[in-house]
Amino acid sequence: MIVIMRRSANREMVRNVCRELQAIGLKTKPIKGTSRVTIEVSGGEMPFDPEGILSRPGVEDIVRVDKPYRLVSRETSPGDTVVQVGDVAVGGRDLVVMAGPCSVESRDQCRTIAEKVARLGVKIFRAGAFKPRTSPYSFQGLGEAGLEILAGIREEFGLLLVTEAIDTDTIDLVAGYTDIIQIGSRNMQNFSLLKKAGRRNQPILLKRGMSATIEEFLMAAEYVLAEGNTNVILCERGVRTFADHTRNTLDLSAVPAVKQISHLPIIVDPSHGTGRRNQVVPMSRAAIAAGADGLLIEVHHDPVRALSDGAQSISPEMFNQLMQDVRGIGALLDRTIA
Amino acid sequence: MIVIMRRSANREMVRNVCRELQAIGLKTKPIKGTSRVTIEVSGGEMPFDPEGILSRPGVEDIVRVDKPYRLVSRETSPGDTVVQVGDVAVGGRDLVVMAGPCSVESRDQCRTIAEKVARLGVKIFRAGAFKPRTSPYSFQGLGEAGLEILAGIREEFGLLLVTEAIDTDTIDLVAGYTDIIQIGSRNMQNFSLLKKAGRRNQPILLKRGMSATIEEFLMAAEYVLAEGNTNVILCERGVRTFADHTRNTLDLSAVPAVKQISHLPIIVDPSHGTGRRNQVVPMSRAAIAAGADGLLIEVHHDPVRALSDGAQSISPEMFNQLMQDVRGIGALLDRTIA
Amino acid sequence: MIVIMRRSANREMVRNVCRELQAIGLKTKPIKGTSRVTIEVSGGEMPFDPEGILSRPGVEDIVRVDKPYRLVSRETSPGDTVVQVGDVAVGGRDLVVMAGPCSVESRDQCRTIAEKVARLGVKIFRAGAFKPRTSPYSFQGLGEAGLEILAGIREEFGLLLVTEAIDTDTIDLVAGYTDIIQIGSRNMQNFSLLKKAGRRNQPILLKRGMSATIEEFLMAAEYVLAEGNTNVILCERGVRTFADHTRNTLDLSAVPAVKQISHLPIIVDPSHGTGRRNQVVPMSRAAIAAGADGLLIEVHHDPVRALSDGAQSISPEMFNQLMQDVRGIGALLDRTIA
Amino acid sequence: MIVIMRRSANREMVRNVCRELQAIGLKTKPIKGTSRVTIEVSGGEMPFDPEGILSRPGVEDIVRVDKPYRLVSRETSPGDTVVQVGDVAVGGRDLVVMAGPCSVESRDQCRTIAEKVARLGVKIFRAGAFKPRTSPYSFQGLGEAGLEILAGIREEFGLLLVTEAIDTDTIDLVAGYTDIIQIGSRNMQNFSLLKKAGRRNQPILLKRGMSATIEEFLMAAEYVLAEGNTNVILCERGVRTFADHTRNTLDLSAVPAVKQISHLPIIVDPSHGTGRRNQVVPMSRAAIAAGADGLLIEVHHDPVRALSDGAQSISPEMFNQLMQDVRGIGALLDRTIA
Repeated sequence: MIVIMRRSANREMVRNVCRELQAIGLKTKPIKGTSRVTIEVSGGEMPFDPEGILSRPGVEDIVRVDKPYRLVSRETSPGDTVVQVGDVAVGGRDLVVMAGPCSVESRDQCRTIAEKVARLGVKIFRAGAFKPRTSPYSFQGLGEAGLEILAGIREEFGLLLVTEAIDTDTIDLVAGYTDIIQIGSRNMQNFSLLKKAGRRNQPILLKRGMSATIEEFLMAAEYVLAEGNTNVILCERGVRTFADHTRNTLDLSAVPAVKQISHLPIIVDPSHGTGRRNQVVPMSRAAIAAGADGLLIEVHHDPVRALSDGAQSISPEMFNQLMQDVRGIGALLDRTIA
Repeated sequence: MIVIMRRSANREMVRNVCRELQAIGLKTKPIKGTSRVTIEVSGGEMPFDPEGILSRPGVEDIVRVDKPYRLVSRETSPGDTVVQVGDVAVGGRDLVVMAGPCSVESRDQCRTIAEKVARLGVKIFRAGAFKPRTSPYSFQGLGEAGLEILAGIREEFGLLLVTEAIDTDTIDLVAGYTDIIQIGSRNMQNFSLLKKAGRRNQPILLKRGMSATIEEFLMAAEYVLAEGNTNVILCERGVRTFADHTRNTLDLSAVPAVKQISHLPIIVDPSHGTGRRNQVVPMSRAAIAAGADGLLIEVHHDPVRALSDGAQSISPEMFNQLMQDVRGIGALLDRTIA
Repeated sequence: MIVIMRRSANREMVRNVCRELQAIGLKTKPIKGTSRVTIEVSGGEMPFDPEGILSRPGVEDIVRVDKPYRLVSRETSPGDTVVQVGDVAVGGRDLVVMAGPCSVESRDQCRTIAEKVARLGVKIFRAGAFKPRTSPYSFQGLGEAGLEILAGIREEFGLLLVTEAIDTDTIDLVAGYTDIIQIGSRNMQNFSLLKKAGRRNQPILLKRGMSATIEEFLMAAEYVLAEGNTNVILCERGVRTFADHTRNTLDLSAVPAVKQISHLPIIVDPSHGTGRRNQVVPMSRAAIAAGADGLLIEVHHDPVRALSDGAQSISPEMFNQLMQDVRGIGALLDRTIA
Repeated sequence: MIVIMRRSANREMVRNVCRELQAIGLKTKPIKGTSRVTIEVSGGEMPFDPEGILSRPGVEDIVRVDKPYRLVSRETSPGDTVVQVGDVAVGGRDLVVMAGPCSVESRDQCRTIAEKVARLGVKIFRAGAFKPRTSPYSFQGLGEAGLEILAGIREEFGLLLVTEAIDTDTIDLVAGYTDIIQIGSRNMQNFSLLKKAGRRNQPILLKRGMSATIEEFLMAAEYVLAEGNTNVILCERGVRTFADHTRNTLDLSAVPAVKQISHLPIIVDPSHGTGRRNQVVPMSRAAIAAGADGLLIEVHHDPVRALSDGAQSISPEMFNQLMQDVRGIGALLDRTIA
């Protein structure tokens, strides 16, 4: 941290700031420039908010120089992390497309969709058994019965599973059924859930919060890694902005940004990220072109009857097109579909 | 719900849409206008996403006419809800100012601040024992030891307490110590926590999420009410925007908006809402002038040493000014300080 | 400007950065801290983008220390600027409420409204003759005929005028009729218009752009002052966010923020700032409570027939209430209505 | 337009709303549904704001059914518009990459860059002679001298030109030198400038405003078309959001959205759209994959010395990579580089 003093700050002000910082265990080194003094601050395990010092006389600004990332940082682990899910590797050369309906509605529905996506090359099936819904009166998912249906899909089609855990009470239950535990956007800063996910030795799919900065997103992952679980797959799924032509604004620049700072794999969810069926295929292509390690796609054979998120599910036919396009762009970037 | 068909939609398209909606248990009434058909849709407990129908041939748009609010709605309960906290009534004629430090740091710190704010007329003391922090390495609160300190404050100064519960595992513990259970912004859509809060017969302070619409905010409260707990106090605390002169953008229009739709009381947190010490007093005045039922204010006798959020805590002297200003504006609006 | 080098940066990297900056006329002073070098950069009239240096090896970050404000800054002119409009002083002890319809529709309409607002104590009448509209097919204002109508209002009721100039071609025409020239949100960064406004010796009402930061807002005012015209009144009118319960999100924190940085007066437009009739009175109270120097209010005797912005115009009866409320809050802050 | 009455609205309320609408020249048809009345409104050239009717007793909501687009709409012109610039066709099968420095700094600088980009296959050179800058003290461009330099580049390298016109005073001057007239983000709703651009028979490059919705963006283009000039190329260049890892948030979903509604070509500017050098290549790939008709790229041989926007300019080497990537993705989508 560097404290930048005002040009008008006098010696006493500098001394006072240093004294206050030392009083809480920090080391300070005031440095005289041509027009102002800056104070380099170091040491201390600092359970304090540096911004408090902003209120002191003579202080112009404070610059946090050291990034807060530790375990998620590429400086800590330069090589790309590859998260192994069964025989599928996420974050390596392979592009991984996870697909399925928004919610588990019935065994028939899941079987119909699973059969179609498996035939198109999908290896990881997605579907929610526990659904976080804005209204308490909306369909909240089939719960454990849904998990049972998913277990059947896993067995019948040899598909791996990704499904969401929505609270600390049910994460262990969900974990017993699924290959990847999804932490949803609304729970990105549910730190208790993140810690519990970090204590399991299982892949975690962590979705970006609706208004999370990249720093907050990576620090949420840091919670999982800090507990010992490094198997984190990040997922960009759109953020809240003023724009109203899509449900969320898919921020694909998150992909190169995350890749530069962190070693973790990142995939993209254009279904929630746009909320519009006709955006899913072009934005899937764009995501792969931007460098994403995979996609999370909602597919439904009968969108009008979909119990949730019907407007963004694509048909198996559109999904077929998507897979072909992704394959083509992947090949250009020297990546193959898992 | 009203389905608006395109001008070019033919009879068959209208018939197909009606048939599909009927197949999922809805009643439809197509209405021929001068240039297009609209279909009125009613009935059904509808565990389906109406937007799925948007993909059908001939459909132009869908209009949700009925608001999703039930128990939180002023149409359901026309009179203002008054939440009783000990001998303090929130949402009535009284303005309620809750104040204290961001975090419980030590018994001494809490006693010093509690003594000062109590003397200035505060009846509800705020301080966090469990702190949700962006970084796993930041100070996470003293936990149960902090709750014990708060219990001491309650007894020594006769102050009521508001403190945050951050997960379903600890909400019962927190509830045993506090008068009001705070649900923080990051947990506004932690539906499991909301449900558990709804099963307690205790006042809940629900903060607006960082990018929550008013509808989402009220529907979060609906989760609590739907479980039987009507003692919900809403709290506007700033939202995420591009603006960078404050930490968040305090959206005071939320106050009249909530008052129009809902019977629940709403207070404002200008400390988190702006994140800037010198904004707290003017924005507190503005909040009361906009019609808020009270304030949630961070006060610290030594902001630089504050373990969290030091930049937004105000000194007891500034808080004294704030109380005077609030009293004055309250009087104009025929409101008195609790 | 301070260049912060990485901990890992070696001497040669520091030397190269210094050399490059010197090559474009800047002075550099590298300062060795305990863990890294920082380079203080000064001098130069710098027609260059400092961020270019970010791409150099060993550079961690760049901190702009000196604020870009010159003439608008309170450091330059510590006292509050009072803009004199006829016998009305904006920015002093008086609160100035400017009111009138969105657009000049007809002589009758203006007379009816002018008579009502004048009777309630308004001294500055607002109405648009040139209207910037999203659609080329929407009503674009009466143009010069509208200005003629305004001239009649001025004479008949002794009201001062504020009306918008939308381009460099018509600003002189508008200036010939009005007391205050309004520069609208869409033109906040129309620098040619700002320069031309700066060359006139007439009060300018400058509205904040829809997604302008406070820095951009003040730098737009700087354009006017830099041409010699210091009679600038700023106006907060809401910004674009995800929130949909109001048309824009009225950012009242802009008021204390501007007051701290600048000596210029700032008023608030809650009509455009919320776009909702029932928000205008409470948000007007809030604006004054936050420290605004006045208000800009749309009043229409027949909102349904208003040619533009009908949803946010208030009736003369509501305006009467507004004036009483403003008077009361003003008195508390030791301010009187102009 | 459809007016939706409340369930509780009585006959008189319906009658009154109809009467008021008829009084301003509209036709109304009240339609009785099972639970409420809706009123279909048609006719009228309506220089009125329909939202005014929202304030009437019994009115629940108003739904604008007909889109405001006329000339820009794909319903009006189903086929893709191809804008011919010299021998380059924008919006057809060819992908068009326009490249060059942010600003014209000197003849040498332009020649150096022009030589490099021309060699890599660029046919349209970009560089600003008039620069809209946040600060009046920043480099504002070389003006006419810069246009002269561009004229030299045109002749020497056989490159076509795109450069910005910043006001109505200089658009004719700029038009005399350039092949495509750029209207920048800050001027997207400078309607006087749009009208003047519409009266020229020359290609216009219209950039999306910093917080413009797609509807506002297309309506800005409508201004140009309404004056008779259909040669409009749209350009997505990032919008303002809370996200801070890029300067703007590049909204690539604008591409499929525009393509669905309009027949106009759309290109993407990832340089301004991200403001970060290392984002330009991946986001260029993503833009083409999303369906963009081309790119606008800042290239500079010496970014640190760039007089403006140095942080986002890429080197000729990176640009070479970009062209290869774009070529590959274009081929997959059956598109070739112009």
